[in-house]
Amino acid sequence: MVEKIRNIAVLTSGGDAPGMNAAIRAVVRACSYHDLECTGIFRGFQGLIEADFEPLDARSVRNIINRGGTFLKSTRSKEFQTKEGRQKAYDNLKANNVDALIVIGGDGTFTGGQLFSKEFGFPVVGIPATIDNDINGTDFTLGYDTALNTVVEAIDKIRDTASSHNRLFLVEVMGRDAGDIALNSGIGAGAEEILIPEENLGVERLLDSLRKSKKTGKTSSIIVVAEGDKSGKNIFELASFIEENLDEYEVRVSVLGHIQRGGSPSCFDRVLASKLGVGAVEALMNGKTEIMVGIHHQKVVNVDLLTAIKGEAKIDKELRRVADITSV
Amino acid sequence: MVEKIRNIAVLTSGGDAPGMNAAIRAVVRACSYHDLECTGIFRGFQGLIEADFEPLDARSVRNIINRGGTFLKSTRSKEFQTKEGRQKAYDNLKANNVDALIVIGGDGTFTGGQLFSKEFGFPVVGIPATIDNDINGTDFTLGYDTALNTVVEAIDKIRDTASSHNRLFLVEVMGRDAGDIALNSGIGAGAEEILIPEENLGVERLLDSLRKSKKTGKTSSIIVVAEGDKSGKNIFELASFIEENLDEYEVRVSVLGHIQRGGSPSCFDRVLASKLGVGAVEALMNGKTEIMVGIHHQKVVNVDLLTAIKGEAKIDKELRRVADITSV
Amino acid sequence: MVEKIRNIAVLTSGGDAPGMNAAIRAVVRACSYHDLECTGIFRGFQGLIEADFEPLDARSVRNIINRGGTFLKSTRSKEFQTKEGRQKAYDNLKANNVDALIVIGGDGTFTGGQLFSKEFGFPVVGIPATIDNDINGTDFTLGYDTALNTVVEAIDKIRDTASSHNRLFLVEVMGRDAGDIALNSGIGAGAEEILIPEENLGVERLLDSLRKSKKTGKTSSIIVVAEGDKSGKNIFELASFIEENLDEYEVRVSVLGHIQRGGSPSCFDRVLASKLGVGAVEALMNGKTEIMVGIHHQKVVNVDLLTAIKGEAKIDKELRRVADITSV
Amino acid sequence: MVEKIRNIAVLTSGGDAPGMNAAIRAVVRACSYHDLECTGIFRGFQGLIEADFEPLDARSVRNIINRGGTFLKSTRSKEFQTKEGRQKAYDNLKANNVDALIVIGGDGTFTGGQLFSKEFGFPVVGIPATIDNDINGTDFTLGYDTALNTVVEAIDKIRDTASSHNRLFLVEVMGRDAGDIALNSGIGAGAEEILIPEENLGVERLLDSLRKSKKTGKTSSIIVVAEGDKSGKNIFELASFIEENLDEYEVRVSVLGHIQRGGSPSCFDRVLASKLGVGAVEALMNGKTEIMVGIHHQKVVNVDLLTAIKGEAKIDKELRRVADITSV
Repeated sequence: MVEKIRNIAVLTSGGDAPGMNAAIRAVVRACSYHDLECTGIFRGFQGLIEADFEPLDARSVRNIINRGGTFLKSTRSKEFQTKEGRQKAYDNLKANNVDALIVIGGDGTFTGGQLFSKEFGFPVVGIPATIDNDINGTDFTLGYDTALNTVVEAIDKIRDTASSHNRLFLVEVMGRDAGDIALNSGIGAGAEEILIPEENLGVERLLDSLRKSKKTGKTSSIIVVAEGDKSGKNIFELASFIEENLDEYEVRVSVLGHIQRGGSPSCFDRVLASKLGVGAVEALMNGKTEIMVGIHHQKVVNVDLLTAIKGEAKIDKELRRVADITSV
Repeated sequence: MVEKIRNIAVLTSGGDAPGMNAAIRAVVRACSYHDLECTGIFRGFQGLIEADFEPLDARSVRNIINRGGTFLKSTRSKEFQTKEGRQKAYDNLKANNVDALIVIGGDGTFTGGQLFSKEFGFPVVGIPATIDNDINGTDFTLGYDTALNTVVEAIDKIRDTASSHNRLFLVEVMGRDAGDIALNSGIGAGAEEILIPEENLGVERLLDSLRKSKKTGKTSSIIVVAEGDKSGKNIFELASFIEENLDEYEVRVSVLGHIQRGGSPSCFDRVLASKLGVGAVEALMNGKTEIMVGIHHQKVVNVDLLTAIKGEAKIDKELRRVADITSV
Repeated sequence: MVEKIRNIAVLTSGGDAPGMNAAIRAVVRACSYHDLECTGIFRGFQGLIEADFEPLDARSVRNIINRGGTFLKSTRSKEFQTKEGRQKAYDNLKANNVDALIVIGGDGTFTGGQLFSKEFGFPVVGIPATIDNDINGTDFTLGYDTALNTVVEAIDKIRDTASSHNRLFLVEVMGRDAGDIALNSGIGAGAEEILIPEENLGVERLLDSLRKSKKTGKTSSIIVVAEGDKSGKNIFELASFIEENLDEYEVRVSVLGHIQRGGSPSCFDRVLASKLGVGAVEALMNGKTEIMVGIHHQKVVNVDLLTAIKGEAKIDKELRRVADITSV
Repeated sequence: MVEKIRNIAVLTSGGDAPGMNAAIRAVVRACSYHDLECTGIFRGFQGLIEADFEPLDARSVRNIINRGGTFLKSTRSKEFQTKEGRQKAYDNLKANNVDALIVIGGDGTFTGGQLFSKEFGFPVVGIPATIDNDINGTDFTLGYDTALNTVVEAIDKIRDTASSHNRLFLVEVMGRDAGDIALNSGIGAGAEEILIPEENLGVERLLDSLRKSKKTGKTSSIIVVAEGDKSGKNIFELASFIEENLDEYEVRVSVLGHIQRGGSPSCFDRVLASKLGVGAVEALMNGKTEIMVGIHHQKVVNVDLLTAIKGEAKIDKELRRVADITSV
């Protein structure tokens, strides 16, 4: 039986994502609104083990809604993967009179949170935050919308050069297992081709498509490639391969890398973070545990943590079709 | 009976919105993909009357997906409000072998398009594009997401000054009849108060809230005010009123104005424009007319134009609650 | 005789400007580098009077170089204008073993600093920070370059609408006494006309110019107007006047206002702040007082505070000529 | 003897840089202002050989001042390196009644232009445009200021992640032979270390510095590395080397790459482009040839092309000192 919640702790874990600060702020403000105490845990699960705690009130989180990253910081914790580590974490929470825990992060974070909750019967609610948008049961994860904007702004810059020089650019974007970033940013940036891990389109088809583009009068091209693309070739190899087989093009590679994780969150991510932060606190108040608060059809929903982490990348076929049509 | 479509014309009308160019591009590319001709009409309905036409092919729309405004331009046309004007428009379309028309804009645009379609039995499909998000039957209109980002970026800048000086800022945002921009950007910008036209919260309540804020340690404040707010006072009067009644605060006013309509569209708006542009062409190919293609639960949907323009502003009560909670 | 400096205090005063935080950071880091103590004074001269002090070390200023505004905050202090107020300030500095003071701000700040230094023989060095670029003896003030970028980005957005609708926009920018922002941002934004306070060009000449523009095929226009422009008309009156006299144009007004003071500083302003912050500390170490550290021909220079505040707006005639030529 | 100039051609060549479009615009407008004809040459020297010409008037260059890249496009031309190629170029110019040529680019562009001018006695003036700022006789080249802003904005994003995770980031910026970008953007981004090609600081010194940083409480670090840095190690090797020798840090690499060349030019670059474009036209009108128009102490100056291309990278020692001081 879940007792009355009086003090909620919050932590961020895993890769950082824009909107994490906004989500922490919403959690803290919702606690304040509902007359609950709120405890900030620094450095994720490791901070839980080391009791790196700090009480947070409404003023602690002012002027952070617009900041990328997470002021609570995030680390990986091997110790939390051990029973002893988790026991220490539990003892620290109890010693500090914390009644429930909100974990903000991706599937690794949720796996840890779910295990901890089950093991100690401790209420845990997750908030999905990862630029990869690879969590089951929520239409969007925090940071994804911002990352898309960062990618299209970067490719807009690259297009200036591409069209000035009649060049072909291969641009690598994040998304090891999910092509959502590549597919959406590729459409948004007006890419001529988008290579994603869910498909194995083959390099021959790519060459054909580029040859056809050239004939229809395209003089420059941007190809967006997801990190984990199954073309069977690393992006630098792919560039060499194209140059060898299509001598009309000078090929250049740009790996966008870590800039995709940072930056001030978009309005969409800030509002989503506000909704989910409030939703997480209220879910705990309503006795919920081992769930994630997600967004579905613009409403906050509760999803079992075990369901959330079973995310399986599925390519949006209609979106792929739109990509193909708008890049003719 | 609708005949086979061979040539689709496209125009933009009413206030411009980021994403209009991306939508035109998607219409043109979809025509090209489906082996249809595409005719661009400059200056909206007025250009229809004056036969300001230009054939567009896939290459005509390169490098425009990232541009604000509309390269087809937009004007108001009094002449199109007359039967004679519309007859000229119809004759021009026929003379140029155009079989169907896509109109990109807001409710005024749809009203004109619907009337024209009914009058001449000419196939017309609308694409919703207005930063105000005040069209019925679509979750989002083109330009709305971009405008929200523009507003929060502007308020982020103002907050630098507000928090440096312990000042109170009143920031006016667009949305004469709909508080969507104010409510979402207000949450996104971390505003302390949000005044929207759908509510009449009263200035006394505002004063109370500001007094309370001051007591909880807030030293600076941002209040977002929608253009048409029913507080009963113009924003400059409101500023004077607050200064007279709360001497703890220096009050400043910022009217964001026209910057909200411009700027490079967000990835969200570019992808939405691509989906709707393709959807509009394919709706016409499927014999649809007098409908708008909108987005609902992330899917393209068809909505009667008459339904679309009956948009009635409804405040999202849950969002208002989130705003109240996160601004404590 | 100036004694050996062991502890330097720093404050910001007057209107905030992007780069103030970067300058504070450089002062603190330079103190740390030279083994001096550094004392932060909150809320400008008022904080000096109220002993609102805090020791700052190299770590206190991490992650602030990119932030607009000033974390030391800034207020106006009437009390500092009295002999009693300044005496309290002096006593507080002495009580806290502070040996010298760096004041970051504009001419009001320098006037206060100069008076204080003279009165008590207390070493004071100024760093010019104001978006208006109206300080004598320095080629650039902190915040000016950033403000120019903010203005051109805003006008780029407005131009999207202007060129979509064939409209005339009047855009008011800051610069009550100095047209530097208007002239430079006007050229940068490709404005058709620039109205600045140093000139009285007359509205008749403006009408002529607009009529001529129309004839050469211009369909939209941006006119940049400095706040204190001597056209003899407020910007809203000016808009009405133009509409009455030129019926070819729909005229719109946009007052950019406070967004111009905020935002993350440009690289130029961050580097300038770093140079001036280091320069100010080292000037004090070398026994300098009652001077401002400025930048001239890319080198840090020392200028008497009395000279610095005698800034007289002089229009750059060559730049005005470039504006006229590039707007044909 | 130089005859009266009636028609000036303009081309862009080499790597593109933000501000090239603004410079073309200023050249065209200055020609229009002085009643000269202006001929645009597409694709640089190759277009000169292929007579890829188009007359440009004041309206041809509207709405381009804010665009990155170059609408005249730029290519490398091997043919122009042959006497025959240059003869064809000369014949084309004569056949089109062009009297003088403005070349916009870097040292390769100037070398070609100088040779051509000498060979045929044809008036040529250069405008320096390259993000590397490696041209002799001008304080700034077009695109450099914009590139610095692009780099600091990218590193600001990376810092969000760095400080969320206590990580060390190596960020590679452009500047094969000149460390100007690295030094200025490194100061601007608050980098802890800056490695530039002009110095061989040694990796041991770097390790010492990082160890010291750790002790003073730094938990995250950004190191900016110029492409051609003489540390003797490629950036990825350098990362491995640091990880092996300092186990306190997780090290990540980010190669900013091509995004540095693109983007909307800063106000500084737009104004500089306007000055230099006007200056180039007027230099030709005054009978100048084989010179570059540069900027020195904020004034337009004329510099022999041969002098301009003898640029030798010199590290600004004072700036290096500021970097060392502000990164303590």
